[in-house]
Amino acid sequence: MTDTTTMQCTALISKMIEWQQDMKASNRTIGFVPTMGFLHEGHVALIQEAKKNNDCVAVSIFVNPTQFGPGEDFEAYPRNLDADVRLAAQAGADIVFCPEVEEMYPTDGGIRIVPGPLADQLCGASRPGHFDGVLKVVLKLVNIVQPTNIYFGMKDAQQLAIIETFFRDYNCPATIVRVPTVRELDGLAKSSRNVNLSDQERNEAPAIYETLQQGQVLVLEGVANDVVKQFVTDELEKKTSGIVDYISILTYPQLEEPTAKSKNLIIACAVQFPKARLIDNIIFEREG
Amino acid sequence: MTDTTTMQCTALISKMIEWQQDMKASNRTIGFVPTMGFLHEGHVALIQEAKKNNDCVAVSIFVNPTQFGPGEDFEAYPRNLDADVRLAAQAGADIVFCPEVEEMYPTDGGIRIVPGPLADQLCGASRPGHFDGVLKVVLKLVNIVQPTNIYFGMKDAQQLAIIETFFRDYNCPATIVRVPTVRELDGLAKSSRNVNLSDQERNEAPAIYETLQQGQVLVLEGVANDVVKQFVTDELEKKTSGIVDYISILTYPQLEEPTAKSKNLIIACAVQFPKARLIDNIIFEREG
Repeated sequence: MTDTTTMQCTALISKMIEWQQDMKASNRTIGFVPTMGFLHEGHVALIQEAKKNNDCVAVSIFVNPTQFGPGEDFEAYPRNLDADVRLAAQAGADIVFCPEVEEMYPTDGGIRIVPGPLADQLCGASRPGHFDGVLKVVLKLVNIVQPTNIYFGMKDAQQLAIIETFFRDYNCPATIVRVPTVRELDGLAKSSRNVNLSDQERNEAPAIYETLQQGQVLVLEGVANDVVKQFVTDELEKKTSGIVDYISILTYPQLEEPTAKSKNLIIACAVQFPKARLIDNIIFEREG
Repeated sequence: MTDTTTMQCTALISKMIEWQQDMKASNRTIGFVPTMGFLHEGHVALIQEAKKNNDCVAVSIFVNPTQFGPGEDFEAYPRNLDADVRLAAQAGADIVFCPEVEEMYPTDGGIRIVPGPLADQLCGASRPGHFDGVLKVVLKLVNIVQPTNIYFGMKDAQQLAIIETFFRDYNCPATIVRVPTVRELDGLAKSSRNVNLSDQERNEAPAIYETLQQGQVLVLEGVANDVVKQFVTDELEKKTSGIVDYISILTYPQLEEPTAKSKNLIIACAVQFPKARLIDNIIFEREG
């Protein structure tokens, strides 16, 4: 058990930079877990993985307004900084960086990072500008924290694909580590947004992963993608009260329409409930 | 005089990263001068300034294709790597980084950095996508070299304004140093493109700076901007065989239309000759 009393916590960019410069001056590697807070076991897994493979670990907690569109759930996004700080310390974090919006965005000269075709699919199609905002905050955080390794969960598979592409094409000096999705016992992917489900919706929600697994089996059996997508949509609409935003089968991480030869695939969906939009996916290999 | 035999030279990103990591491991500050080569006294001034204020200096020489549009002079852009390496060494560089295009751009996932309204004026208006390419290569180079200080000439005033805004809004960890434009004895701004002028055009070209100076005087005397711009255009069309691409009076570095209260101004123009597009500017203060 980590001594949680030694963990630092700062809302200031200048303090965060000071900390990482101290770490680097003593040749320590930095693992970094960027989060939007309301930490759950998925985040804990990221922090523990970072702790295992780095000399010290920074966790950021920042609900990033630039990745929420108009009418999305920026205001309703759950927050609990006290609990987050406790969980981060228990999981092994050495510092929590929890800036206010004004600290992160005091100025805006209008320069954007636009993800291009990788954002045309999946969540990007129904959340225009979302991944611009993700890339902006990730580049800012990476410039502030300057980590050796940075940890992302595979539940946000499109985010991961876009950030991996950005880091590769722009020579970003941190190494990205993919961490598998952590699930509830009934299979539901852990998500901060799950608290915004009603009891009934929470009971329905495991159908998302169950149905994706059935879809994966059908793809591996050679069933045509369109047929699989229709099957998954029908099942989800039967088993949940949510609205299916998309169900896609694509190559991963390119996010292109697969051909018969494509080996690395993702089957992914988003289901919109009244107060929570849930996403999930399975990334898998097929014999080419 | 620097011992030019000790200067290193590499075309490999991996070697460049190794060098900067060595420098950082021994706590040395790194000054960085990114160039497109065909070095002249303007670049030498940047390198000397970097040498004065850093423990070691890196110079990149890379004619960056992503900042040239279709029909622009990427192929005709002058190149002379041997002379550049000699000049960089004499000016005090410790390493020259001169990658091939394939080394810098092996992959392209389609993610772009778009400069927004700052690119609507001046060169951005007639060179769509130019500053996307500039921001891409600058971020790549900064990620590779990880400099303490980075040096830019003020001749490329719009480029400087956009890069300063990008660094500020994205927390890029290097400090930008502005270096004044170096001029020929007759006032013409030093530029690698000057070699593409005919003898007659070279004789006409000093009129650009002369006329900008006259325009500056008129602005300071309170003459309306539209009148000043017409005057400069008329003068340049009378005194040169080039075509005036733009003449602008804007706030600096915001690049907005000035009001009566605006204090920091730029008067800037671009003149297109058959084989060289020349730009120049004066950045000056006015009593508000």
